[in-house]
Amino acid sequence: MGLIVQKFGGSSVADGDRIRNVARIITETYRRGHNVVAVLSAQGDTTDDLIAKAAEINPKASRREMDMLLSTGEQISCSLCAMAIEAMGYPVVSLTGWQAGFQTDSGHSSARIKTVRTERLLSELDKKSIVIVTGFQGINKYDDITTLGRGGSDTSAVALAAVLHADLCQIYTDVDGIYTADPRMVTGARKLEEITYDEMLELATLGAQILHNRSVEMAKRYNVNLEVLSSFTGRPGTIVKEVTKVVEKSHVSGVAKDKNVARVAVVGVADEPGIAFKIFSLLAKHGINVDLILQSIGRNNTKDISFTISRGDVEVTRTLLEEGKEYIHFDRADVSEDIAKVSIVGAGMINNPGVAARMFEALYNANINIHMISTSEIKVSVLVDEGDADDAVQAIHDKFYREFGDRC
Amino acid sequence: MGLIVQKFGGSSVADGDRIRNVARIITETYRRGHNVVAVLSAQGDTTDDLIAKAAEINPKASRREMDMLLSTGEQISCSLCAMAIEAMGYPVVSLTGWQAGFQTDSGHSSARIKTVRTERLLSELDKKSIVIVTGFQGINKYDDITTLGRGGSDTSAVALAAVLHADLCQIYTDVDGIYTADPRMVTGARKLEEITYDEMLELATLGAQILHNRSVEMAKRYNVNLEVLSSFTGRPGTIVKEVTKVVEKSHVSGVAKDKNVARVAVVGVADEPGIAFKIFSLLAKHGINVDLILQSIGRNNTKDISFTISRGDVEVTRTLLEEGKEYIHFDRADVSEDIAKVSIVGAGMINNPGVAARMFEALYNANINIHMISTSEIKVSVLVDEGDADDAVQAIHDKFYREFGDRC
Repeated sequence: MGLIVQKFGGSSVADGDRIRNVARIITETYRRGHNVVAVLSAQGDTTDDLIAKAAEINPKASRREMDMLLSTGEQISCSLCAMAIEAMGYPVVSLTGWQAGFQTDSGHSSARIKTVRTERLLSELDKKSIVIVTGFQGINKYDDITTLGRGGSDTSAVALAAVLHADLCQIYTDVDGIYTADPRMVTGARKLEEITYDEMLELATLGAQILHNRSVEMAKRYNVNLEVLSSFTGRPGTIVKEVTKVVEKSHVSGVAKDKNVARVAVVGVADEPGIAFKIFSLLAKHGINVDLILQSIGRNNTKDISFTISRGDVEVTRTLLEEGKEYIHFDRADVSEDIAKVSIVGAGMINNPGVAARMFEALYNANINIHMISTSEIKVSVLVDEGDADDAVQAIHDKFYREFGDRC
Repeated sequence: MGLIVQKFGGSSVADGDRIRNVARIITETYRRGHNVVAVLSAQGDTTDDLIAKAAEINPKASRREMDMLLSTGEQISCSLCAMAIEAMGYPVVSLTGWQAGFQTDSGHSSARIKTVRTERLLSELDKKSIVIVTGFQGINKYDDITTLGRGGSDTSAVALAAVLHADLCQIYTDVDGIYTADPRMVTGARKLEEITYDEMLELATLGAQILHNRSVEMAKRYNVNLEVLSSFTGRPGTIVKEVTKVVEKSHVSGVAKDKNVARVAVVGVADEPGIAFKIFSLLAKHGINVDLILQSIGRNNTKDISFTISRGDVEVTRTLLEEGKEYIHFDRADVSEDIAKVSIVGAGMINNPGVAARMFEALYNANINIHMISTSEIKVSVLVDEGDADDAVQAIHDKFYREFGDRC
């Protein structure tokens, strides 16, 4: 008998029928002899309704009051789920973030978990109760309600699994695992049986929005075994852990695409030390995340620095560069938004230098032009025209999976 | 400069426009130099939606989980109201029941307030913040969320006014004060400028559902000055306090009607001691409130005992009497539900024995039959046919207010 933490996202609890379905999954696990702590997101429409109500009253509401408002969403889904479990005749209790002991820092709407005080959780588990916990929320040192921001409920679940030393943390969602590519877009995409934390981190960063990387980072740090699976199919999902069985014939565990990307080219900067520092410290100071960075080789005492950012940051970046033009010294800044990033991820590629070359070959054969290239130990990313992105993913996927067969 | 507690009910915060209106009333009071603590109910439709969601999932949900669910309603209205006040540029903070220090007993769905820990409230008032507090809720000693049941938000407001030694507790509602009779039903009904706690208690009990008597009892005990007024008109309301100015020419401050009443006649009980004890201790043990009690004078060694109960208690009472028939000894129990209770209330009637007689005269002139009569120091109640109730109220009101002129 073990302890299993299960997390159910907004689409898994969207209405009464789905809440009953979640209650069945939880009680089925409990009936098999496990202790169960379930972390729930808010019902999708509840959050939308609350945001609309707030926007009507004050579009610039403080984040403190927004947290106060939005945290009710999980409280509603959790109490409803507890009622469904009561109706099935099992002992159950629902707990809010503060009742479950979630202490966070004071960063309203994007708080970070500091500790989880487990007294109440442990006492409920001692009583053999199923415990339903509101994801996404906690309280800060002033006893004000905070929310964890994007991916918060996944992070809540992983944090609970870590502090309670759970045997497994199951992330139930509307997909049944991690695929070698988006199965809705790519012919021949296959579900992976296992994947490493690092591979998962790269995939999350690269636009495969199944698990937020905050939660994967935390799982890796505390060695929490994750399973990503569907709340609708009942089939086994994908296990995320430190080391996977080396059964793969390919060295690539996934191909991902990210269209939320813009390229900025700062043209004609002086070929002297300190320029990169000036540009990127200016952006960092204003909270702008820079992804790929490419610096051309100098010519005529000037060079170009290109980098990618999220499309939402384009306007701020443009303004910052304009204001800093004197200080940085450059001719002009060009921004293009009709691009996309396509990446392959795989822990196996470290020791296989031919992987990147094979990716470029696939793109060449598909007649797709590459604008930028960036590589890390377990990832190769290229920037291509947005219109080429889907073809690029399919071509790369075909290259690795037709040549090497199934990975799993 | 003083401290004013303001309470706004569900209809006062029903939508965005009304929340903005409440925000205007609060900030207007603050602008005049007062500290303001405002207690809000849930938006009416929020509570209805939540109850419907729960009913769909589990019609027999535990009261603990219902409290968890329903308490979100006030959290939503309070955070929205705080956002509206932020938009007007005033310092404000919203607090849940537990954040505001409401400690209750463990009676989920009908909890009683044990203490209010004022540290957080006082620290926010020190900072010159307007404080918005969720009515109707607190936490018990296990840190579980409780709700106070019917009239709970009024009670929350009065409790805050008591512990904070507020100068005034204003109960904003959709009527603009306490009237001599229901102004929608009775021609010539007048608004009272002042009324005593005791009169208000009798009126509340008698079906004039403006203030729940729990809140009036607490106001009387802690000597909290109450004002009942409308959140829509901006006009002065009715002040409820210990002693009122004796300006009244009449001795009657109000005429009230209650249709939620049923009469039970236990016919043919033995004319011996202990019968009343047996009947009413049986009912009390099962939580049934008995109002008027009438015992006939014994004849042939038997007598009849009649009493009134709420219509919702009729079936349980019938069953209890049937089961206890052997033990109590009686011929039969008759129940009639087509009756209503009509009452006059007035602190001035203690020293004016002619008041009851004048009420009976009014009913006689209107040709209305009286089934039962009950009197207390400040009240006379009669039971009449339900079809006669409206005429009875009008006739009695005419009698006292046409003869004596305005009271206020």
